[in-house]
Amino acid sequence: MVQNELIARRDKIRWLMNQQNIDAALIACNINLLYTYGQIISGYLYLPLHAPARIFVKRPNNIKGEFVFNIRKPEQIIDIIQEQGLPLPQKLMLEADELSYTEYTRLAKMFPEAEIVNGTPIIRQARTIKTAMEIEMFRRSGIAHAKAYNNIPSVYRAGMTDREFSIEIERLMRLEGNLGVFRVFGQSMEIFMGSVLTGDNAAAPSPFDFALGGEGDPTLPVGLNGTPLKEGCSVMVDMGGNFNGYMGDMSRVFSIGKLTDEAYTAHQVCLDIQNELIGMVKPGTVCEDLYNKAIDMVTKAGFADRFMGIEQQARFIGHGIGLEINEMPVIAPRMKQELEVGMVFALEPKIVIPGVGPVGVENSWVVTADGVEKLTNCEESIIEL
Amino acid sequence: MVQNELIARRDKIRWLMNQQNIDAALIACNINLLYTYGQIISGYLYLPLHAPARIFVKRPNNIKGEFVFNIRKPEQIIDIIQEQGLPLPQKLMLEADELSYTEYTRLAKMFPEAEIVNGTPIIRQARTIKTAMEIEMFRRSGIAHAKAYNNIPSVYRAGMTDREFSIEIERLMRLEGNLGVFRVFGQSMEIFMGSVLTGDNAAAPSPFDFALGGEGDPTLPVGLNGTPLKEGCSVMVDMGGNFNGYMGDMSRVFSIGKLTDEAYTAHQVCLDIQNELIGMVKPGTVCEDLYNKAIDMVTKAGFADRFMGIEQQARFIGHGIGLEINEMPVIAPRMKQELEVGMVFALEPKIVIPGVGPVGVENSWVVTADGVEKLTNCEESIIEL
Repeated sequence: MVQNELIARRDKIRWLMNQQNIDAALIACNINLLYTYGQIISGYLYLPLHAPARIFVKRPNNIKGEFVFNIRKPEQIIDIIQEQGLPLPQKLMLEADELSYTEYTRLAKMFPEAEIVNGTPIIRQARTIKTAMEIEMFRRSGIAHAKAYNNIPSVYRAGMTDREFSIEIERLMRLEGNLGVFRVFGQSMEIFMGSVLTGDNAAAPSPFDFALGGEGDPTLPVGLNGTPLKEGCSVMVDMGGNFNGYMGDMSRVFSIGKLTDEAYTAHQVCLDIQNELIGMVKPGTVCEDLYNKAIDMVTKAGFADRFMGIEQQARFIGHGIGLEINEMPVIAPRMKQELEVGMVFALEPKIVIPGVGPVGVENSWVVTADGVEKLTNCEESIIEL
Repeated sequence: MVQNELIARRDKIRWLMNQQNIDAALIACNINLLYTYGQIISGYLYLPLHAPARIFVKRPNNIKGEFVFNIRKPEQIIDIIQEQGLPLPQKLMLEADELSYTEYTRLAKMFPEAEIVNGTPIIRQARTIKTAMEIEMFRRSGIAHAKAYNNIPSVYRAGMTDREFSIEIERLMRLEGNLGVFRVFGQSMEIFMGSVLTGDNAAAPSPFDFALGGEGDPTLPVGLNGTPLKEGCSVMVDMGGNFNGYMGDMSRVFSIGKLTDEAYTAHQVCLDIQNELIGMVKPGTVCEDLYNKAIDMVTKAGFADRFMGIEQQARFIGHGIGLEINEMPVIAPRMKQELEVGMVFALEPKIVIPGVGPVGVENSWVVTADGVEKLTNCEESIIEL
């Protein structure tokens, strides 16, 4: 990756570190290494406030560079830092929300004189505002995502289950270059490539806090559960758009034959919510205002009790996206965060109609100086299979 | 899941806790919840040494039971434990190798009077010896895995890349019921559904400590890299066998046309190593003895410099499998651990031939009272596509 891009990213982190008098970061988690070093290594990136980053690599064994050092274990880092003429930090940040307790305490012990603070929120904040290069990655991802979705009707066969349909869609995504891996912040949520939900399975509560649940499998309790795709039912396809590391997000709805009038009405309500909210988006828009507007609209339309689930309703309608699917900002109640230029988010108003299935829409958007740019351009009406 | 099965698993953990005077465990990580509760929840399983387990659930909101309590946050657990008439623990174990530092310290703070110790090694040790039901899950997984692999030649088309071939194999796996999710212990290693390696890409070093690497993608540096499948090259298929939560493991080799004589010789060396080592396996066999025997054999055969990689060689030839791909025991140098009845492991002697690709074999095995049972039964010779 272009060195200037990486330096710009590191400087965003440094700017936030400086505000808290943090004089170094030791970065060890894959996604943050990808962000700050441009690739994943088994190793560490040491980021001093006032000196170039140093890279400490355990594996692979073929990385070379001016500031790259091969190590066998992290404890070697201290000597190398000192040999490099760098002062040891007074206040060091480690990824406390991501490193295991064991790893964190091992790394913290290497700096007995330093105050150790949690670096995860700082790095996540830096990652919230995307660079021009990152936005371009999202644009490319959105194009590939739309190409795969455009082919979905061609792989449908009557009598399929949600699983069989999903398998063909996964293949379409992979053929367009999807990497398959679905990255989520935190250790508690997991999913395969995304979800394909039909009928009442869309309302099945899941332990995971995605927009909709689905029964899934006992060992992976989210998403499809083998439901046959039946006449009069909707199918929502919500696959992760990881074509180049950036988790684009897009949901579209298909139908087997015609749906009830109520389902089409509900779908239009979701489109109206999307369009109304997107009209409000500009730098300075407050996240909770978007959420509250959506709740107003869906309540007036009479679908509040089926919005974002039924028995268990998600308490957000959108979320930041980036190298992980759940970044900042979150479009949810009481979120006072203001949108800024360069934030990229998914907005996903969805309603579940009992006996029919899920309707609604999801697109990915980037905040621009005067509004918003759509990253996922693809037919939004319900497509009959 | 049958309640007796869960009680047996919990009692295995209790037996190990008791040896260290640990009087309770608070289990919070998905895989350990799956093991001890039979399903994944957003919540906690509290395991006292001398009383039935209590389940604390945040999500989903539809779980009921005698010892199930709905909570919004973990701090509510303390009051409920006391209301239940249970003593607060003197020595509590938490999953220190798996929980984030932030989560661990939050949970530890709830028990200010207790000594807190790392529960991860204890739970992993309990999980090492599989129950009869778990072994049956592996048997079923092995059958599905073999069915998918038997269909591999039917999806090959001349001119494919490794990626295109992998996509069709992924689909075959999914059609046999593979859940797709590939679970790895620890936060540092990730992979999509497995790896398909051909030609010199099989020797490309990866940051991840799998048996072989592969260049992969900058954002997912392992496995296939778009190499065309060329005449005279081998292709090794090593997909994760997660059909029901249990990560069966099996690798097979295919060829485009004929390979060099050296490649067939190397493949036979790997089969000979497998067969020799499996002949040694019985309760009490020491892991390092298996490893050392393999190194002896491959050295005598003249392939030591290409065994388990070339520039970067893996320092193991087998690993325990279970709900995660990298369980105990590890068949590696200096591993004094003895095999026991009920241990399930993958054995994967592999050699990379420059200009050709990877050869070798991988199967999953369970240790029995008088030897070993093979869980993955599928043709082991190199199959010409």
